[in-house]
Amino acid sequence: MPAAWLMSRPCESTVTLMSKRHIYLEDLPLDEARARLRAALLAAGRLAPLPGEVVALADALGRVTAEPVRAKLSSPHYHCAAMDGYAVAAADTRDARETQALSLRLGRGAHAVNTGDPLPDNTDAVIMIENVNQTDDGRLLIYASVAPWQHVRLMGEDMVTTETVLQVNHQLRPVDLGALAGCGHTTVLLRRKPRVTIIPTGGELVSPGRRPERGQLIEYNSLILRSQIREAGGEATTSEIVGDSLGDLRSALQDALGSAPELVLVLSGSSAGSHDFTAGAIEELGELLVHGIAVRPGHPVIIGMIGTTPIIGVPGYPVSAALTGELLIAPLIRGWLGLSREEPVTVEAVSTRKIVSPLGDDDFLRVALAEIDGRLQATPLQRGAGVITSLVQADGLAHIPRFHEGVDRGQAMRVSLYRSLSQVKSTIMVMGSHDPMLDLLATHLRLFSPARRMISVNVGSIGGLIALRRGEAHLAGSHLFDPATATYNLPFTRKYLRDEPCQLVIFAQREQGLILPPGNPRGISEFAEIRGLRYVNRQRGAGTRVLFDHLLEQHRIAADEIAGYEHEEVTHLGVAAAVADGIGDCGMGLRSAAEAMGLDFLGLTWERFDLVIPERTLETTGLQALLSVLRSADFKRELGAQSGYRSDQTGEVVEV
Amino acid sequence: MPAAWLMSRPCESTVTLMSKRHIYLEDLPLDEARARLRAALLAAGRLAPLPGEVVALADALGRVTAEPVRAKLSSPHYHCAAMDGYAVAAADTRDARETQALSLRLGRGAHAVNTGDPLPDNTDAVIMIENVNQTDDGRLLIYASVAPWQHVRLMGEDMVTTETVLQVNHQLRPVDLGALAGCGHTTVLLRRKPRVTIIPTGGELVSPGRRPERGQLIEYNSLILRSQIREAGGEATTSEIVGDSLGDLRSALQDALGSAPELVLVLSGSSAGSHDFTAGAIEELGELLVHGIAVRPGHPVIIGMIGTTPIIGVPGYPVSAALTGELLIAPLIRGWLGLSREEPVTVEAVSTRKIVSPLGDDDFLRVALAEIDGRLQATPLQRGAGVITSLVQADGLAHIPRFHEGVDRGQAMRVSLYRSLSQVKSTIMVMGSHDPMLDLLATHLRLFSPARRMISVNVGSIGGLIALRRGEAHLAGSHLFDPATATYNLPFTRKYLRDEPCQLVIFAQREQGLILPPGNPRGISEFAEIRGLRYVNRQRGAGTRVLFDHLLEQHRIAADEIAGYEHEEVTHLGVAAAVADGIGDCGMGLRSAAEAMGLDFLGLTWERFDLVIPERTLETTGLQALLSVLRSADFKRELGAQSGYRSDQTGEVVEV
Repeated sequence: MPAAWLMSRPCESTVTLMSKRHIYLEDLPLDEARARLRAALLAAGRLAPLPGEVVALADALGRVTAEPVRAKLSSPHYHCAAMDGYAVAAADTRDARETQALSLRLGRGAHAVNTGDPLPDNTDAVIMIENVNQTDDGRLLIYASVAPWQHVRLMGEDMVTTETVLQVNHQLRPVDLGALAGCGHTTVLLRRKPRVTIIPTGGELVSPGRRPERGQLIEYNSLILRSQIREAGGEATTSEIVGDSLGDLRSALQDALGSAPELVLVLSGSSAGSHDFTAGAIEELGELLVHGIAVRPGHPVIIGMIGTTPIIGVPGYPVSAALTGELLIAPLIRGWLGLSREEPVTVEAVSTRKIVSPLGDDDFLRVALAEIDGRLQATPLQRGAGVITSLVQADGLAHIPRFHEGVDRGQAMRVSLYRSLSQVKSTIMVMGSHDPMLDLLATHLRLFSPARRMISVNVGSIGGLIALRRGEAHLAGSHLFDPATATYNLPFTRKYLRDEPCQLVIFAQREQGLILPPGNPRGISEFAEIRGLRYVNRQRGAGTRVLFDHLLEQHRIAADEIAGYEHEEVTHLGVAAAVADGIGDCGMGLRSAAEAMGLDFLGLTWERFDLVIPERTLETTGLQALLSVLRSADFKRELGAQSGYRSDQTGEVVEV
Repeated sequence: MPAAWLMSRPCESTVTLMSKRHIYLEDLPLDEARARLRAALLAAGRLAPLPGEVVALADALGRVTAEPVRAKLSSPHYHCAAMDGYAVAAADTRDARETQALSLRLGRGAHAVNTGDPLPDNTDAVIMIENVNQTDDGRLLIYASVAPWQHVRLMGEDMVTTETVLQVNHQLRPVDLGALAGCGHTTVLLRRKPRVTIIPTGGELVSPGRRPERGQLIEYNSLILRSQIREAGGEATTSEIVGDSLGDLRSALQDALGSAPELVLVLSGSSAGSHDFTAGAIEELGELLVHGIAVRPGHPVIIGMIGTTPIIGVPGYPVSAALTGELLIAPLIRGWLGLSREEPVTVEAVSTRKIVSPLGDDDFLRVALAEIDGRLQATPLQRGAGVITSLVQADGLAHIPRFHEGVDRGQAMRVSLYRSLSQVKSTIMVMGSHDPMLDLLATHLRLFSPARRMISVNVGSIGGLIALRRGEAHLAGSHLFDPATATYNLPFTRKYLRDEPCQLVIFAQREQGLILPPGNPRGISEFAEIRGLRYVNRQRGAGTRVLFDHLLEQHRIAADEIAGYEHEEVTHLGVAAAVADGIGDCGMGLRSAAEAMGLDFLGLTWERFDLVIPERTLETTGLQALLSVLRSADFKRELGAQSGYRSDQTGEVVEV
């Protein structure tokens, strides 16, 4: 699982009140935008659920009834035995007494029946097998009379022909299909699937499968939206990508309308131009209803009508696009199926960070969730509208309504769940330094126990200890070197977690050094040669930065002698990527990161990366599972085989 | 929505300790049965998740990753502008001051960029559009210096090549597909779908589409199980129905094993014979592990192994079959996909009935749920293992564990939800007399407001008033005639709901009379001629029975003069079905019921059917929606058009 970056660099997609280069966008409240769309659909006669089509039961799972369904057959459709026993005519048993057995001949006055068997002619009751004695000459002795219809399931007891079995607008589950077949149906009238045409626009977009050049982006928003539409019960087709041309977009819209879909989506490219084209084309061909909504992320939503067909312009950034799908598109699809909006399961969770929200917006934040010390904690993920990882990592969506300034750290907020609560509750939250091999541990945990999930939020080593103190994480990853004692982590743990008894469990020994361009063009062979190079640094509080500062001190180099000291990356791979791209000449980091990016590496030291585990969480079943995976031969073997890692001490508890 | 019968006639499918005609069944606890199956799968090397297959992203929604997925491309894969503005070289801006603007030439020292655009060569920072003044001659005035990489999204800031994007054993959602496409994938390695072969057995079974003769049953359990398997992520094929022959079953099993499925299901017919064949065939070809589990309903489950393939014998009754699918089969499928058991959402609900459970069994009861006066109330549905309607009507499943005797009325119990809690909470629960046209009202309500659902539990008119007093229903349907005052319902409401202010709202006027065989063969023309006929009665507390008793008294006929007075049906349609089937010569009921079954009818009186609504629930939004639908012209027109109904007073409040 990739590290879930905290909100570090704000990267807003919002385009507001732009100068000449942009047209004006409204900031219409979400509810008002929905109301305008609804009114336009109503006026166009397109608000009602779609008509029905006849579908075979085998293809009907998950689809929605377009009319109430009535039984064509009664169930049972004949009188049948409700017990294993003997069918008799009740009148024949009138004289049976406990003291005076009545004798019936098997096959004449009494007939063996199993539960479910049809009642033989001239019988109207069943005597339970336990209440009968069978003689050797095939006669039955009965000790009590029976009432008519005793232990008989009467025809229609369950369902009578013409009775309503399923209501209209009902989404069919497996048992519903059984009931329909059982009462005589082989087909059912179901709501037609709403059809959506998706038009991706933007000259910078390329289809998946092509390697994008610099400045090009893979077009995948249509895949997200098509899948959201499919989940909601509709079906979508995606047209060719339309370049930045009003004329081309106009033609594409006209083509799309030709197949009479329920809805057309125009996916904006990232450029403001393609966005403007959407509004322009709608205004030319129909009516623009909404041009920008007060939602973060997602401002640049466009809504219009061409003829009687609604058109939604979806913002180009993936997080905005996905949110537009959830807030505006899925509810439309469900409405056309006769279903109400899906009510998400919501929980109350405490925010681990202060969140500042723009007063005028409905603000939606993706959060990671975990239960720590019995409290659900929500950690906001990096906010940028372009951050794909925040989409996959989110456990839930927090909504901070308009006219709210935000949420304080420690304050409770409502979160709609993207995973089940039980999944959230079995999540192990690691904060602190993020070692890439924590992902390997998460994989092994997942394979060992499918219900468990470990996520790792990168806040740096010291950040992890602070998070533990605040009760925001189950454990922390740390590799903090203390020059005074020449030990790792322990002095820092004592400093930051004074009152919290903790165990340090060794995760790995890792090789740290200088990450250098391929072929080491400057021939760097020792740390002191760093002077004069453009350096790529790590963020404050990162263990690697602590180590770098220590090395500078050892070599009596001042921080301001280092060009690029202020250029901060938040991961090893980030540093490697910056070196690979020539932003810097070197950076401090892991051998594994250098090799992953095909870079050179000058090894300087082996350091210990520990898991810091508060004793109060140590005994939980989740932590016990994690530790047994950590100590497993399989995991240690795979970890030790990685370049720049040693696992011989992995799983050992550090002596305090 | 059909009426949800209360547990009236116990109709147990359980086959225990049978005499000669049956073989012995164990009563193995559920957990023990699961453990045996698990151990056998482990020994056979068949417990692990299935291997992967390469699938195109477009087909991957809802499927499960078979390995962790790493980024093939960084995101962004080039440095790009994080804001709309101007890209510059930070070093060029060093001398800009608030008091001393720096001038840059557009297109040379500064380049206009939109959010997401790649950074032009020789630039490393973006100045926000708001912080710049543009002169008429195409120059930019800048009032502050900028740091390198300010407002720049660095390459890899979101994801760096080689980083883990998704974990193994992860079920893919729309956003996950987007993330995979965005980091360079077009395919993904997914767990192969577990394959199941289903063999229906039983000589009495016919395939859907054929009209079953007396003694024949439509085979639909395979449809339920196939759909459950599909929902869990597997795929199932159903073989031809196998008759009651050990040899045929053996061949069918061998055929099934030939295609190497992960699992074979043998669906028992209702006869004990077909059940025995399953156990016999498994013993012949492999090993029988479990022969009967202590679960109600669902005792006759069989588990075995043939070679390394698990075989499950599924009980023949639909409720038992569906429960076996939930408890045993779906978890197997999910395990093969690398997913944990799906944890159902559970709620605490108060039982409205006393429930008696067999001490040795895990007892599973389907219940209807509604929130009344802020409390979730669970009403057990008819228990029989053959009752299909209990499958479609259930809102949840209550589990009463082994060694518990049951649950008292008013006692809380845990219920696993089959519908979302918000759906349950928006359910309007009607108890009392069930008029078939209440289903029409439910349909209109559903069309008017898709989120609302009305269900009607048939407990008879007086039962409904008692349910209101106990706070078990939102409203009650009632048609109780009081001879003393010659009025409907009011005296009874006063008697049963003394302290509860209620409103009576007229639902309909209905025509009551004698339901007679087609053509009225005995030429019955007035009520008094009922003497000497075999009568089909309604249950105690039913309004129709009250009316019948009143008519008897009017005509000075004693109850014991009426043959069949003790034969009770619980619905109008039940009475009609009994007359249609010749069980009785006549019964009292609605014209609509007689006509639905193609019977004759002797009209005797028009009666008023009211909705009794406690004032405390009257003001809820649900009741208000229901009343506005009841009073709508559409509904009244459709109701009034039904034979035997008048709707001119529908919706009127009865003067108290």
